[in-house]
Amino acid sequence: MSRIALVTRLSPEAEAHWAGHLARALPGERIDGFRELSPAERAEVDIAIVANPDPADLAELPNLVWIHSLWAGVERLVAELGHLARPIVRLVDPELARTMAEAALAWTYYLFRDMPAYAAQQRARVWKGLPYKRPERTTVGVLGLGELGAAAALRLRDAGFDVHGWSRSPKEIAGVTCHAGEETLERMLGQVEILVCLLPLTGETRGLLDARRLACLPEGAQIVNFARGPILDSAALIEALDSGRIGHAVLDVFEVEPLPEASPFWGHPKVTVLPHISAATDPETASAIVGAHVADYRATGRIPPSVDLTRGY
Amino acid sequence: MSRIALVTRLSPEAEAHWAGHLARALPGERIDGFRELSPAERAEVDIAIVANPDPADLAELPNLVWIHSLWAGVERLVAELGHLARPIVRLVDPELARTMAEAALAWTYYLFRDMPAYAAQQRARVWKGLPYKRPERTTVGVLGLGELGAAAALRLRDAGFDVHGWSRSPKEIAGVTCHAGEETLERMLGQVEILVCLLPLTGETRGLLDARRLACLPEGAQIVNFARGPILDSAALIEALDSGRIGHAVLDVFEVEPLPEASPFWGHPKVTVLPHISAATDPETASAIVGAHVADYRATGRIPPSVDLTRGY
Ligand SMILES: NC(=O)c1ccc[n+]([C@@H]2O[C@H](COP(=O)([O-])OP(=O)(O)OC[C@H]3O[C@@H](n4cnc5c(N)ncnc54)[C@H](OP(=O)(O)O)[C@@H]3O)[C@@H](O)[C@H]2O)c1
Ligand SMILES: NC(=O)c1ccc[n+]([C@@H]2O[C@H](COP(=O)([O-])OP(=O)(O)OC[C@H]3O[C@@H](n4cnc5c(N)ncnc54)[C@H](OP(=O)(O)O)[C@@H]3O)[C@@H](O)[C@H]2O)c1
Repeated sequence: MSRIALVTRLSPEAEAHWAGHLARALPGERIDGFRELSPAERAEVDIAIVANPDPADLAELPNLVWIHSLWAGVERLVAELGHLARPIVRLVDPELARTMAEAALAWTYYLFRDMPAYAAQQRARVWKGLPYKRPERTTVGVLGLGELGAAAALRLRDAGFDVHGWSRSPKEIAGVTCHAGEETLERMLGQVEILVCLLPLTGETRGLLDARRLACLPEGAQIVNFARGPILDSAALIEALDSGRIGHAVLDVFEVEPLPEASPFWGHPKVTVLPHISAATDPETASAIVGAHVADYRATGRIPPSVDLTRGY
Repeated sequence: MSRIALVTRLSPEAEAHWAGHLARALPGERIDGFRELSPAERAEVDIAIVANPDPADLAELPNLVWIHSLWAGVERLVAELGHLARPIVRLVDPELARTMAEAALAWTYYLFRDMPAYAAQQRARVWKGLPYKRPERTTVGVLGLGELGAAAALRLRDAGFDVHGWSRSPKEIAGVTCHAGEETLERMLGQVEILVCLLPLTGETRGLLDARRLACLPEGAQIVNFARGPILDSAALIEALDSGRIGHAVLDVFEVEPLPEASPFWGHPKVTVLPHISAATDPETASAIVGAHVADYRATGRIPPSVDLTRGY
């Protein structure tokens, strides 16, 4: 017996939207929302497709073999579901990588073309051109060169920027200066005028961008965090913005989401707050990928490459 | 006898900055600011290099053969200097086209990725993702397919948008749907979600985007004007923004510049005001181009292709 449970804490409409796309992508599969399944049916479930699932729900699937996440980020799944000792497959979707690369370029342009400064001038009715420096004379640093970071680095390179990248293991990307390992980080930061963070949240990356690392950046550097909030130390960032050392920050991710009403980020003139929208999963393309993984598993018994639980990504 | 006069109404610092670059790009030439020349020296001038010149100054160069503008836009030169009946050469600089294409992409992303809407949400402390539509499902229209418009259309096409372009004479640009002639404009506008204007200002384009044309755009369409203010009817635009028919406008150019303090654009929530910065001439690359033109003229007597005074661009 085999069946698929969709386990989420999405709104009913969002879950129904996903269920429709998944049903089309998984013809012949029995796929139901976890809540609709009886205990007997739950015992038949071998695959869970999850989006922000309640761990207690997954614990009620006694014959679960593996878990497919609909998101790319998995730090929460690793923390909450790691003890289940079931392979966790994350979403690797070229369309997601494309969207994130687009976001990296769009908000890099936002900073590079001085959009926040021109907005401030507009509010003050000031007509003043700011100096323009060509992209090849502007260094953009990308932290993380995985599915999303590598796509972003290529896109920024194609836009003409001088791109540096940083990862754990050494990489070679044509036209991108690659650095690897913690000991190279501070020297790289010293050259970066716009820093784009696309690291996963792990024990090693939590708090990575602290006061000391931020102080390595050149005066007036700007930051984009599209990864996870806890990688960047909020208090240290606000201090660096207030002292003028950091020019502006675009933040799409936060320690607590939705960002609490009382957060100082909302009203900070040097912060652009985005509601975790830099790259949303596209239910259409993602369902097709999940569908292919499931079909392959049914045919061959092969579980797609899964997250390294000790490494945390 | 030959010499070059630099005729501008730039600030003394800006003119000196240009003079330095031009001197390096024109070794062996005698090149001086118009004000520094005696009447006898003025009589030796055969080439004027101009940036927003006072027409009265040019009238004092009796042996002037041709004029090289440091800008790409020439409508004012045509209007003010056309009667001198000297060839006017405009700047055609690939670096300028690159910068304008970059600006077209950067501010198209600004609108496409809902940056104005997210800024408004940030001010209201609202955490809410807005629907995302892929670029290939978004139609961007480029008005003008000359040096700058064609470069912008290519850049937008490469970013994945569904790009339509419009010019006077028919064009073929791979991956861009090209339309030509006034009779095709309104039908094209009916499909355009983001409209980027890169037309020259001429008798035909003045007031081109009036209430009737704006009404052709689909509900919520957004506009970028990087060309010249008078091409877009300000009153009609404000009406269309206020009624919600047009979603947002990015304006880099205005009927009067600097934009007067009292302009309703400054404080309009659906208008982004830029101080004519979408693509500034780069003195380094532009001087090299002017230098090559002058050297070719000295060697061969050939004046570079000049503006069609009857067509106006
Ligand atoms: N804001 C959003 O809308 C959104 C959407 C999707 C994802 N995300 C976030 O983006 C993150 C990155 O996604 P991805 O798919 O690119 O992840 P990935 O494919 O797992 O790549 C992670 C990259 O980070 C590097 N890395 C990990 N730990 C490191 C360390 N301690 N020091 C240096 N480099 C380290 C890895 O190095 P190696 O290559 O050497 O392993 C790899 O290059 C996700 O984890 C998620 O949090 C955000
Ligand atoms: N904001 C800034 O910083 C900035 C900087 C530089 C330039 N500009 C502006 O950008 C404008 C465009 O520059 P460019 O170098 O691309 O000019 P260009 O090479 O002369 O090209 C003009 C384009 O507009 C088309 N066009 C002209 N009149 C038309 C009409 N009546 N109907 C339809 N199409 C028409 C032309 O069609 P054909 O190809 O058929 O002739 C051509 O494709 C300049 O004139 C200037 O005003 C702004």
